[in-house]
Amino acid sequence: MGLENHATQKRSGAAGGSLPTTTTNPRRTSSGLPRGRQIQKTFNNLKITILCGFVTILVLRGTIGVGNLGGGADAEAENQKLIAETNRILAEIRSDSDPTDPSEPEPEFNPNVTYSLGPKISDWDQQRKIWLQSNPQFPNYVNDKARILLVTGSPPNPCDNAIGDHYLLKSTKNKIDYCRIHGIEIIYNMAHLDKELAGYWAKLPLLRRLMLSHPEVEWIWWMDSDALFTDMVFEIPLSKYHNYNLVIHGYPDLLFEQKSWVALNTGSFLFRNCQWSLDLLDAWAPMGPKGPVRDEAGKILTANLKGRPAFEADDQSALIYLLISQKQWLEKVFIENSYYLHGYWAGLVDRYEEMMEKYHAGLGDERWPFVTHFVGCKPCGSYGDYPVERCLKSMERAFNFADNQVLKLYGFRHRGLLSPKIKRIRNETDTPLEFVDQFDIRRPVHRDTDPKGL
Amino acid sequence: MGLENHATQKRSGAAGGSLPTTTTNPRRTSSGLPRGRQIQKTFNNLKITILCGFVTILVLRGTIGVGNLGGGADAEAENQKLIAETNRILAEIRSDSDPTDPSEPEPEFNPNVTYSLGPKISDWDQQRKIWLQSNPQFPNYVNDKARILLVTGSPPNPCDNAIGDHYLLKSTKNKIDYCRIHGIEIIYNMAHLDKELAGYWAKLPLLRRLMLSHPEVEWIWWMDSDALFTDMVFEIPLSKYHNYNLVIHGYPDLLFEQKSWVALNTGSFLFRNCQWSLDLLDAWAPMGPKGPVRDEAGKILTANLKGRPAFEADDQSALIYLLISQKQWLEKVFIENSYYLHGYWAGLVDRYEEMMEKYHAGLGDERWPFVTHFVGCKPCGSYGDYPVERCLKSMERAFNFADNQVLKLYGFRHRGLLSPKIKRIRNETDTPLEFVDQFDIRRPVHRDTDPKGL
Repeated sequence: MGLENHATQKRSGAAGGSLPTTTTNPRRTSSGLPRGRQIQKTFNNLKITILCGFVTILVLRGTIGVGNLGGGADAEAENQKLIAETNRILAEIRSDSDPTDPSEPEPEFNPNVTYSLGPKISDWDQQRKIWLQSNPQFPNYVNDKARILLVTGSPPNPCDNAIGDHYLLKSTKNKIDYCRIHGIEIIYNMAHLDKELAGYWAKLPLLRRLMLSHPEVEWIWWMDSDALFTDMVFEIPLSKYHNYNLVIHGYPDLLFEQKSWVALNTGSFLFRNCQWSLDLLDAWAPMGPKGPVRDEAGKILTANLKGRPAFEADDQSALIYLLISQKQWLEKVFIENSYYLHGYWAGLVDRYEEMMEKYHAGLGDERWPFVTHFVGCKPCGSYGDYPVERCLKSMERAFNFADNQVLKLYGFRHRGLLSPKIKRIRNETDTPLEFVDQFDIRRPVHRDTDPKGL
Repeated sequence: MGLENHATQKRSGAAGGSLPTTTTNPRRTSSGLPRGRQIQKTFNNLKITILCGFVTILVLRGTIGVGNLGGGADAEAENQKLIAETNRILAEIRSDSDPTDPSEPEPEFNPNVTYSLGPKISDWDQQRKIWLQSNPQFPNYVNDKARILLVTGSPPNPCDNAIGDHYLLKSTKNKIDYCRIHGIEIIYNMAHLDKELAGYWAKLPLLRRLMLSHPEVEWIWWMDSDALFTDMVFEIPLSKYHNYNLVIHGYPDLLFEQKSWVALNTGSFLFRNCQWSLDLLDAWAPMGPKGPVRDEAGKILTANLKGRPAFEADDQSALIYLLISQKQWLEKVFIENSYYLHGYWAGLVDRYEEMMEKYHAGLGDERWPFVTHFVGCKPCGSYGDYPVERCLKSMERAFNFADNQVLKLYGFRHRGLLSPKIKRIRNETDTPLEFVDQFDIRRPVHRDTDPKGL
C-alpha cells in the first residue's frame, strides 16, 4: 500500500529522467511525501507487518502446536491423525444396522403397566434344590466353601476419557488376581440386558439373569468396576451370613435414624441365589425404568433421604428407601461394617505406606482395607466429582498396593506405589518350592496364623 | 486510522461552526482529502479489516476448533483439556522416583557372560513330584482334567493409541469367559520381570517364574493379548499330548523344508510344567538379551530363516531356529495344525456369518476357529501392519462372534457382528433351568453329541 505508492512515485521520478534528490523542502522526504505523511506511512507499514507476523504465528500454531516445534511435531500430528481416524472408525462400528432400532428411543410411558424384570417365579428354591440334587457335578459347595460368582462390567463402548479404559483393564486384572487366589468365578458384563433399566440400574436384570442361569452359584457378588481389591488375603466370612440373603456395607444409624442416602453402598454387595433375592429384585426394580418413572421416583427419594441431591432415581437410594419403607426385608439383610466390603477411597489411599509399615494383609478393615472403592472418580466418563489428578494417582497407588501382595509369591514388588516398575525382593534359588509354601496366599498358613505379611 | 482522521476532520469542521458540506472541489471528498487518497485510504482500511477478521477467525479456530462451532465446541474443548491434563498426570505417575534407576539404561554388554534366566535347576520333576504328594489339596489333576494356567498380559502403561486399551479390555473379557467355562485359571501379567528380556521376549522369564511358583499347574498356556477365543466350546485335546511337553501351532513342511520364519507361532502355545521345559527355556533365552546380543542374533536368524526381514531377534524366530538346529528337542514338540490353536485372522474374520450358517461351535478348525489371532494389528501401538479400520472392525466382529456363544445361555445375541447391542433370542419363562440344561456349555451334552449350535 504505502510501499506501492513509494514505488510508483519512484518510477514516476525515474521516468522523468532525473534522479530523485533530497528535497529542498524540509518537510518532504526523499520519496517526495511530506514528513508527516512519511511517518504515517511507515507506521502503517509497521502495523501491517506486525499483523502479518501475528497471522503467520497463529497459522503455524494451529498446524504444529506451540510446544511442538521440533521433533515432537511429526509424532503429535501422526497421533492426532490416528485418533481422528480411530474415532471415525468407531463411530462406524457403533452404528447399528438394525433398521427397526436406529437409536435408543425413550420407551413409551404407560402408567398402567408396572415394569417387570421377568416372569414371576415363586418356587425358585424348590427348582434349584431339585436341580442341584440332579447335578452333583455342579455342586453349590466346593471344598466346604460356598460357590461365589463375582459380577462386574462396563459399557461396551470405549470410555469418553481414553485413560478410563486403561484403568478398567487394571481393575479387571486386580479382580482376576483376587478371584484366582480365592477360587471365585468372574462374569464381566458388557451388554445391556434391558433398555429400560440402563446405567446403574443395569445390575438388576443382570443379577436376576445370572441367578437363574447359574443354579450352582450360592452367592452372587456384584462389584463396581471402580472398586479394587486391596487386601488379597482377606476372605468374606460367609459363615456369618448363614441366616441372611443380602450382605451390604453400610451403617445402621445412618440408615434408620438419619435416613441418609449414603447409608448403604451398592458398589459391592452379595445376594444369595434364592427366592427371597428374586423377590427383593422385583420390589427394587420399579423405580428404575428410564423416563418419567425414574424422574418421579428421584423426587420421592430426594424428599425422603437426607442429603440426597435432586436427580433421577438411582439404585442405591431406591434400595435404602425400600428397606426403610418395607422393614420386613431387613430380617435377611446383614448391614456389614466390620470390614471394608466397600471402602471409600478418600480416607484410605494416603495411608497405604503407613499400613505396610504397621499392619499386614488379611485384616480387611481400616488397617488394611479389603476393597478400596473410587466413588465419584468416574475415570471412564468426562466429569468426575474429584480432580482427575487425585483420582488417577490414587487408583494407581491402590492398584500397586494390591499388586505387591500378588507379586510377593513371585519375589517382586513395585518400586513405589506410583511406579509400574518392579524390583526383586529376594534372590532366586534352585529350590523355589520353599517360597511357594511360605508365600502362596492359598496356603493354610495364611489362613490360620495371620503372619506378618507386607 | 482512516476513521480517526475522518473523525478529527469532522470535529474540526464542527468546531469551526459550519456543517461539513459537499466540497466544491470535485477532487476532494468531504474529509478534505483528494479522491485518489480517499480511495487509497478506504482500500487500506478494508485490507486491515480483512486481516483483523482473518486473525480473529484463526484465534477462534485455535481455541474451539473449526468443526465445533455450536454445541460441540464446549465438549471438544473440555475433552481436549481433559486429555492434556490426563497426559500430564500420567507422565508424572510414570516417572520413577528411584534415583538409582532414572531410566532404562542399556545393560552393559559383557561377551564373557551368557545370559541366564535364573539358577540352574536339574531336578524339577523330582521336586515337583514330592511337593504334589505332600500337598494333596493342590492336585495337578482336577476331575480328571490336567490343571491349566492361561498366561497373558500387556505393558503397565496406557497404550499409545487410546483404542488399544479398550480392545485389551475386551480381549481380557473374552479370555475370562472361555476360562470360566473351562475351569482354567488366568494370570494377567503387567510387570517386566527382567529388563534384559523385554518386549516379546518377556514371556520367557515369566513362564519360568510361573512354573516354579505354581507346581500344581500341569500346563502353562501362553496366549498373546491380541488373540481371541472364537470357539467357546472347543477344548484342547490334552490326551493327544501325553508324551509331549510343548504344543505349538505350525506346519512341519514350513519348518523343516522351507525353514520359514513363520513355520510356528508363539502367540498361543502350551508348555508342560517339567524339567524339559525349563531346559528348553534356558536354550531359547540366549538370543533374547536386549542390545548387541539381540541385534547380532537377529542377523543370524534373518540369514537362516526364509522370508525373515532384518530386525533384532524375536522369540518366535529364535525358537524355530533352535528346533531346526538342535533337533533333539523335537521329540517332545507337538506341531499342531488340526485345529486353530493359533488362527491367523485375515483369512477367518470375513467368514463368521458363513460359519454361523453352516457349522457350529466345538469344531475349533477352519470351520469354526478356536482362536483368532490378530497378528500385526497392534491396536495398542501406533504402527500396525494393516489399516486401522480393517483391524478394529475385524476385532469387533471376532469379539461379538465369541460373545454370542457366551450370551446364548442367557438368551441373548448381538444384533450384528459389529453391534455392541444385544437382542433376545428366546422369551423368558418361569422354568429357566431347562435352558441351563440345554445351553450351558459345560454340560455334558455339548461335550458328547456335538449338537448344532450357533
